[in-house]
Amino acid sequence: MSDKIKTAVVGASGYTGIELIKILDNHEKAEIKYITSRTYAGKKVKEIYPMTLSLKNNSEITFIDEIKKKDLGSIDIIFLCLPPGKSMQYVSEIIENFKGRIIDLGADFRIKNEKEYEKWYGSMHILKELLPLFTYGLSEIKRDEIKKANYIANPGCYPTSVLLALAPVLKSRNINIESVNIDSKSGISGAGKKLIEDYLFLNMSDNFYAYSAAKHRHIPEMEQEICDMSGRQINICFTPHLLPVNRGIFSTIYLNLKKDSDLVNFENNLHDYYKNFYDGEIFVKFLGEKIPKLKDVVGTNTIQIGFLYDKRTCTLKIFSALDNILKGASGQAVQNMNIMFGFKEDEGLNLNSIYN
Amino acid sequence: MSDKIKTAVVGASGYTGIELIKILDNHEKAEIKYITSRTYAGKKVKEIYPMTLSLKNNSEITFIDEIKKKDLGSIDIIFLCLPPGKSMQYVSEIIENFKGRIIDLGADFRIKNEKEYEKWYGSMHILKELLPLFTYGLSEIKRDEIKKANYIANPGCYPTSVLLALAPVLKSRNINIESVNIDSKSGISGAGKKLIEDYLFLNMSDNFYAYSAAKHRHIPEMEQEICDMSGRQINICFTPHLLPVNRGIFSTIYLNLKKDSDLVNFENNLHDYYKNFYDGEIFVKFLGEKIPKLKDVVGTNTIQIGFLYDKRTCTLKIFSALDNILKGASGQAVQNMNIMFGFKEDEGLNLNSIYN
Amino acid sequence: MSDKIKTAVVGASGYTGIELIKILDNHEKAEIKYITSRTYAGKKVKEIYPMTLSLKNNSEITFIDEIKKKDLGSIDIIFLCLPPGKSMQYVSEIIENFKGRIIDLGADFRIKNEKEYEKWYGSMHILKELLPLFTYGLSEIKRDEIKKANYIANPGCYPTSVLLALAPVLKSRNINIESVNIDSKSGISGAGKKLIEDYLFLNMSDNFYAYSAAKHRHIPEMEQEICDMSGRQINICFTPHLLPVNRGIFSTIYLNLKKDSDLVNFENNLHDYYKNFYDGEIFVKFLGEKIPKLKDVVGTNTIQIGFLYDKRTCTLKIFSALDNILKGASGQAVQNMNIMFGFKEDEGLNLNSIYN
Amino acid sequence: MSDKIKTAVVGASGYTGIELIKILDNHEKAEIKYITSRTYAGKKVKEIYPMTLSLKNNSEITFIDEIKKKDLGSIDIIFLCLPPGKSMQYVSEIIENFKGRIIDLGADFRIKNEKEYEKWYGSMHILKELLPLFTYGLSEIKRDEIKKANYIANPGCYPTSVLLALAPVLKSRNINIESVNIDSKSGISGAGKKLIEDYLFLNMSDNFYAYSAAKHRHIPEMEQEICDMSGRQINICFTPHLLPVNRGIFSTIYLNLKKDSDLVNFENNLHDYYKNFYDGEIFVKFLGEKIPKLKDVVGTNTIQIGFLYDKRTCTLKIFSALDNILKGASGQAVQNMNIMFGFKEDEGLNLNSIYN
Repeated sequence: MSDKIKTAVVGASGYTGIELIKILDNHEKAEIKYITSRTYAGKKVKEIYPMTLSLKNNSEITFIDEIKKKDLGSIDIIFLCLPPGKSMQYVSEIIENFKGRIIDLGADFRIKNEKEYEKWYGSMHILKELLPLFTYGLSEIKRDEIKKANYIANPGCYPTSVLLALAPVLKSRNINIESVNIDSKSGISGAGKKLIEDYLFLNMSDNFYAYSAAKHRHIPEMEQEICDMSGRQINICFTPHLLPVNRGIFSTIYLNLKKDSDLVNFENNLHDYYKNFYDGEIFVKFLGEKIPKLKDVVGTNTIQIGFLYDKRTCTLKIFSALDNILKGASGQAVQNMNIMFGFKEDEGLNLNSIYN
Repeated sequence: MSDKIKTAVVGASGYTGIELIKILDNHEKAEIKYITSRTYAGKKVKEIYPMTLSLKNNSEITFIDEIKKKDLGSIDIIFLCLPPGKSMQYVSEIIENFKGRIIDLGADFRIKNEKEYEKWYGSMHILKELLPLFTYGLSEIKRDEIKKANYIANPGCYPTSVLLALAPVLKSRNINIESVNIDSKSGISGAGKKLIEDYLFLNMSDNFYAYSAAKHRHIPEMEQEICDMSGRQINICFTPHLLPVNRGIFSTIYLNLKKDSDLVNFENNLHDYYKNFYDGEIFVKFLGEKIPKLKDVVGTNTIQIGFLYDKRTCTLKIFSALDNILKGASGQAVQNMNIMFGFKEDEGLNLNSIYN
Repeated sequence: MSDKIKTAVVGASGYTGIELIKILDNHEKAEIKYITSRTYAGKKVKEIYPMTLSLKNNSEITFIDEIKKKDLGSIDIIFLCLPPGKSMQYVSEIIENFKGRIIDLGADFRIKNEKEYEKWYGSMHILKELLPLFTYGLSEIKRDEIKKANYIANPGCYPTSVLLALAPVLKSRNINIESVNIDSKSGISGAGKKLIEDYLFLNMSDNFYAYSAAKHRHIPEMEQEICDMSGRQINICFTPHLLPVNRGIFSTIYLNLKKDSDLVNFENNLHDYYKNFYDGEIFVKFLGEKIPKLKDVVGTNTIQIGFLYDKRTCTLKIFSALDNILKGASGQAVQNMNIMFGFKEDEGLNLNSIYN
Repeated sequence: MSDKIKTAVVGASGYTGIELIKILDNHEKAEIKYITSRTYAGKKVKEIYPMTLSLKNNSEITFIDEIKKKDLGSIDIIFLCLPPGKSMQYVSEIIENFKGRIIDLGADFRIKNEKEYEKWYGSMHILKELLPLFTYGLSEIKRDEIKKANYIANPGCYPTSVLLALAPVLKSRNINIESVNIDSKSGISGAGKKLIEDYLFLNMSDNFYAYSAAKHRHIPEMEQEICDMSGRQINICFTPHLLPVNRGIFSTIYLNLKKDSDLVNFENNLHDYYKNFYDGEIFVKFLGEKIPKLKDVVGTNTIQIGFLYDKRTCTLKIFSALDNILKGASGQAVQNMNIMFGFKEDEGLNLNSIYN
């Protein structure tokens, strides 16, 4: 009998769900027990996604409609890949019967302040009492809390790309920030599997534009964690853009700094802040003053970070690149599972870019 | 005998040169007399660029090595498509014998302050005395000067995308700008015809990254014109990125504004500033709070501009999209020629995107 | 008052309709009177297709639901851009009141044998009596008939790419063909504006595959015209593929020839057959033994043709490249209009590729 | 001490070399001992290919100039990734001192008839005596020979895509083939790391064309193996094309069959031929009458095969799709190593497409 932990993926037919299946298929310590999909219940994954024909252990795996109450007991961990509002509903239904761990890849448990949640998501939070039990799963930053956590709110893709890039600066605490402009560019898989005209090849190829520029739901999540890391309330101006590529997020972060006596000192130490902060991390590669490239991270669980300080304008530019479905979603979710269960942190995540 | 004006393109084998040939081929009031290329002298354009097989009047046109001194007299206007430093050298050689007009698509005569030029371009300016004679050819902004000019310094692609987006705001003069962050994304044709590994399909497809983030030579050009338009010395933080598309520039401009009593008033009038400023312009389309898309302008001489005001952070975001080879180079050059000679401003420039 | 002919586009909101609008907007001898669209009636074209903001004369043009009976008299020519079965229905409704010319870009009047039509299209033909009145509008081959025609059945995109490539060989009549395999590759615009998952950027980018390999509706159209040109009944094996590009068709045609005494002679004369056949044609460029490239024709009304004879297998390979929406549809339609009305054949069609 | 076999990659800085490094990095039974590159000797792989930052065991691995004679004894298997002519030269230099196994990913030992080699490759073969010792490593077809072989000539990318598609038909032996036309389409990585203008993003994106249509060096390799499988000498007409994608080969094979009494019988059994032939194979997926898609195999070591029989023209169309760098090169090389050493055939090759 297998001594692997038993996992389930709820809402498994979207991009993050499929990616979880692909990662867990190669995981030495975990096996997939159930995958659910209302739309595709009864169908094999390979019928919907022919590339999963290459799965090693799960090539015949089949979507079910839902996990039966009596089966919940056999599961060690559930990954939730559900749209906004659906995670809390699902958790409220199973919480009495399910004693295992939960990693929610959705947004329902990321915002600790339910008022803030309701303001940005436009609906009531029905499980406020559980909010304090969910740890924000930014792996490198919250490793100690994650080790002890039962429930994880897995970070959004943009917030992961931004917060890991900002952490070494924010935690150094000795700069005076005037404004923060974040210009992020995402591959189209970030938009999920929606069948709308804008996402047709004909409309998206050779195209580029900003979207949700007025207000994007990832803003309160980023501001909450920025406050947590820096001890300061900082409002950010965030603009996402759509790239004509499938995968990857490239964020360019502009920190406009106040000219004061500490600035030279800060500039001189910047390289060390980053180097020391991420020393020994397997999934964060600090490139110094080199700029990362999207293609070098797509297909991997790695985030690459570089920076440049513009003296003329006292602006610190930080660049980060990651794969939005891996480090920005399913990869980080498995990394969190590995931390929770004491597995090697990169178990199942030795992924190389397919590009040369 | 034709009563069309006689044009010449010097350095015609690069992207901007070929685009000039394509535009002038359809021009009712101008004809192409000479095109020069050291590399391809003696070869027909169609041998190098097979798509020019479709040219109407110039399908057999041939590159020559250089225009002979004795032929200079027959030319009404010369377009220069030369690398930095080469335009001033060429102008210094012909200026005694050539009495016609010049439009320089290169950078040599854009920066009025030769010290500034030397600082950013790293070499001496050998024709300082001519600098005051060159008009900065931002068509919509300098139309009156262009009408009277003999010599035009045609704007860079990034500056065109940024300055036309900023003009209505800067000329309104009643805001207090704290910082300007400009995040531009360009198709790869902006890099010219360089044969380097980074520009191979294999390296560029599905890729994205920032470059020249420390300092890009278009910065002094933008700051000079921003000063000219606003009456204020404003330092900008500018970061160009490379998009995996052939053509087009999309600029996202962040103006971080100081909170003061005028801000609400400014916000309320923003739409009108733009609308009035560009009223009647054929090549500037103001979209209001809609965001332009790269694909809608590629293949045209049009710039599309939209904006959004982020109250939370007092940041004005301005978005612009243009075709870097057309409105950002050869299209604007012909627009300037039309203005100089009193032709219809859109003569030869009725170009539609080929996309559906 | 304008002495331009009055045109109407019925079903104008699809790709071929929009392309007609863009071409006719620049046409010296024709103007657009009506454009119809059931879906977008009442909306301006630029609201649906923002790139048409650059139209010169029709930037404010608006879709109407349908042309009123009383207005039919003022129209000189109607272009039909309707799905299979809809053209014949529309023609049957207007034919009594409309005395002008018709160019049908759809398939309803291409197949002369109504039995054949019904077999491949799976429905009855309701206007058989009109079939003989429609001329198959392959411009270079049927120019004389087109001059005299009132009604044109505009060729399909694949048939245009194949028939123009085959014509010089088929009309030489002195070869013995064993089999014909046609391997065509089309950009995704050929599939029209369908909102299906396969055409999403995420599914189509970096992808490639054959489709409709069992039987494609363009087969009977090609076999009919091959018979017409060669005097022989030849069955072709045709396989279309989908390319991850917007536009263009590249066809590779394999003629497996019977080894006989004439073959050497045929091979030696091949180059001349083509050269002489297309001598003087403005929209057909014969490249000899050079292979055309898709990018050199996209955005133009030109077809480029090359060939190679493989002695080892007695196979003649013919290569052709065209823009499926232009020479393969709307461009050829306007070319036909020009022929019908005695305009310059390239009026409105001086289009250059936007690529460098 | 590790009991893994020791491997070396000679000429490791090209695409196939880097892919071998990525695969072997995850291999449970093999480790990388040496990687050589004349160009990059002394440099770390990650300096040249930043995406290899994600390697698990070899993130610091460094190119050496060449393997010293004294070190050859410690190596169990050498992979050669060298240009035509260079493999035989290298083998001739080491053969006396090296007693281990060799897998040559190049072309030098694929063609058994040295006259044929010299005819197609245009140079003398300097190691004829070794030709009989090299087994053609088409894994699924030659598994038994591979098990016993010391030296493997790893198949070309196009031949793998074609031969695995044809094998079930050719081995059934009961059809009369009139002609074979093979239309293959390859991603640009197949062209290797050449810095030429044609492979620039600007020239290749949105483009498509045939190349080497007169004669491609993979033809004699395919004809040799077709003869070996069918017992008949069959000349093939082969035309490769370049796709605007990085990876993958899609082959469309047209078998024009002679009409005879067996044909109906053959058609009825076709599905079974394939199904039975590849039953149990992990890296060959037979799709029946479904057409494979390039994207479903890119990133994997799987070939997908489908077919359609066109009764009208007695033509069997076979479709195959594979990743040219994996199943078409480095993946199949490791598969062969696994077979030679008795490892699980898919060890190190559990690769999933990164696409969703």
